[in-house]
Amino acid sequence: MRIAQIAPLAESVPPKLYGGTERIVSYLTEELVRQGHDVTLFASGDSVTSAELVPCAEKALRLDPTVIDPLPHHLLMLDEVRRRAADFDLVHFHVDLLHYPMMGEHARHTLTTLHGRLDLKDSHPLYAAFTEFPLVSISDHQRRPMPPVTWAGTVHHGLPLDVLGFSPLNTSGYLAFLGRISPEKRPDRAIRIAEACGLPLKMAAKIDKADAAYWEEVIEPMVRASPRVEFIGEIDEREKARFLGDALALVFPIDWPEPFGLVMIEAMACGTPVLAFGCGSVPEIIEPGVTGAVVHDLDQAVAAMPGLLGLDRARIRETFETRFSATRMADDYVELYRRHARSLDRGATGHRRVAPRLALGV
Amino acid sequence: MRIAQIAPLAESVPPKLYGGTERIVSYLTEELVRQGHDVTLFASGDSVTSAELVPCAEKALRLDPTVIDPLPHHLLMLDEVRRRAADFDLVHFHVDLLHYPMMGEHARHTLTTLHGRLDLKDSHPLYAAFTEFPLVSISDHQRRPMPPVTWAGTVHHGLPLDVLGFSPLNTSGYLAFLGRISPEKRPDRAIRIAEACGLPLKMAAKIDKADAAYWEEVIEPMVRASPRVEFIGEIDEREKARFLGDALALVFPIDWPEPFGLVMIEAMACGTPVLAFGCGSVPEIIEPGVTGAVVHDLDQAVAAMPGLLGLDRARIRETFETRFSATRMADDYVELYRRHARSLDRGATGHRRVAPRLALGV
Repeated sequence: MRIAQIAPLAESVPPKLYGGTERIVSYLTEELVRQGHDVTLFASGDSVTSAELVPCAEKALRLDPTVIDPLPHHLLMLDEVRRRAADFDLVHFHVDLLHYPMMGEHARHTLTTLHGRLDLKDSHPLYAAFTEFPLVSISDHQRRPMPPVTWAGTVHHGLPLDVLGFSPLNTSGYLAFLGRISPEKRPDRAIRIAEACGLPLKMAAKIDKADAAYWEEVIEPMVRASPRVEFIGEIDEREKARFLGDALALVFPIDWPEPFGLVMIEAMACGTPVLAFGCGSVPEIIEPGVTGAVVHDLDQAVAAMPGLLGLDRARIRETFETRFSATRMADDYVELYRRHARSLDRGATGHRRVAPRLALGV
Repeated sequence: MRIAQIAPLAESVPPKLYGGTERIVSYLTEELVRQGHDVTLFASGDSVTSAELVPCAEKALRLDPTVIDPLPHHLLMLDEVRRRAADFDLVHFHVDLLHYPMMGEHARHTLTTLHGRLDLKDSHPLYAAFTEFPLVSISDHQRRPMPPVTWAGTVHHGLPLDVLGFSPLNTSGYLAFLGRISPEKRPDRAIRIAEACGLPLKMAAKIDKADAAYWEEVIEPMVRASPRVEFIGEIDEREKARFLGDALALVFPIDWPEPFGLVMIEAMACGTPVLAFGCGSVPEIIEPGVTGAVVHDLDQAVAAMPGLLGLDRARIRETFETRFSATRMADDYVELYRRHARSLDRGATGHRRVAPRLALGV
């Protein structure tokens, strides 16, 4: 198939540092090329890909100090996509809903993966108005707050098998917390669990400006007060493999509607079990007794620990390879692309516009 | 003519508090209706107009605490505009360039007034790519940093004659500073000028969060140190008439490329002369020796003061009425609308697309 992938311009594809969406777009693109598809990637000019790259900004916008407003750059990219849309069997968007008003006539040849949380209400009227765009969620739970739209399917993220190697032994004996220090990630719970279980906790985390007060007032005092807790700050991708692989378990005690949670499958790739709180996507990702435990409070978390540490790490890796590989993710998407193409062949219009779109009671 | 006015949704039209763009859209809309045109206003639902209102958000987004992201609301509005575009002889946009990629086919029936500074480079590639959209600047100077685009004209802003009444006497004897406390407005210069001239200075100004440090570290100490300076904080529209009308002169010592500077013509409406630094639009707005003085440093400012205070306030008001009334502004726009319609009649396409739009050297 002739497929276009439309990435955000914030980071390159793949990203130099952070950037979950751009990382997934990269894994998907490379796997589609490997499978023999004719793939065109619309992304920042410093992206690296085996697909045909259409550079839509000189470099990743977030790393370009001259960029203040990312919006015009994205509008220019989307206009270019619109002009070339007829060249592709399918255009796959990863930029939320910015393309909606300008891609209406091509909607039936598009798929849009929503990478973020969907409970912010500002976008709902726009989603509700453009039901001709088929959407893909990255977990079933992610869909819950949405108004009626056209769901094409859920596709869980996947990673290339060699990104994080299997780590059979865990000699270091610590629990791992990996992510941002922010209230919704609940690092305080991670510390309490480690204390209650009598196990060391290593925290690899960045502290965004917005969370500086939370760190100083809540978490830093807890870290200082506990001899079991070691805060190691930000780590890069290479360090991540070791950090997760050497851990007894990943603690993922979130308190927000996580749309997917890449770090869970990163831990699984290493063979490391996951202790997760049952929010958002968690029950879809973790199989209790196989890859981890799903709990709802601190008592349950402490009670689950012995069983968790006894899980078979080889089987966790095996489960990762079956359920969360980039190949499986690409296969899922190709199945959606094909199903979509078949429905077009059958003459479905894909157009379900309601008029008027604006129906405010003013 | 059948004319659509497309306002930003941040504030209502007219705005309840601040909002220069929405205020101008309101003045223009009301004047066009008064002149007998068939006007449709796309704006927030709490707008008040004698035109036909298409409510595009329940209320002004900036005053709605449930709104986090204004973008989807604007996209929905612009989609509605696109769907109705054929109903109008001309669609007049006041939302920068967000409509570009979705209004391409209707570009020849549009006019876009750019209300902000244009020296931020992020938007330039988009402006350069969509030369089929005719643009209106609000001062000639505003155009300078722009790449080659299609300028339809410059239309200076105007005010209804009764918004600020003429104030013939100035018994209070003070210089006025009105605006934000921010480095580019140079309140420090205003204080130095008042000190050097031995005149009292009243400062009516809001302090945005972003400027809190500048206030605390630079301006507040200057205010505290000077017995001549009185800081009176934010004032509303009603207080503004009195504040400007009672002043000996408005001090406008800016240090940035001001695209227009409404406060200058507000002072002129009261008959109050303006002492302005020659940045941005200033030389186009102020006639030296008639409505004020244009200076380039503090010495010039002090030297200009005696002449400034001797200017004929009635003649300043007269000049305001001739050059900066809402009627003059609306007449200018109608002339552009008509010229535009005539060029369409003559079969000009208005389409000057260059391909490819994206020409990055990557």
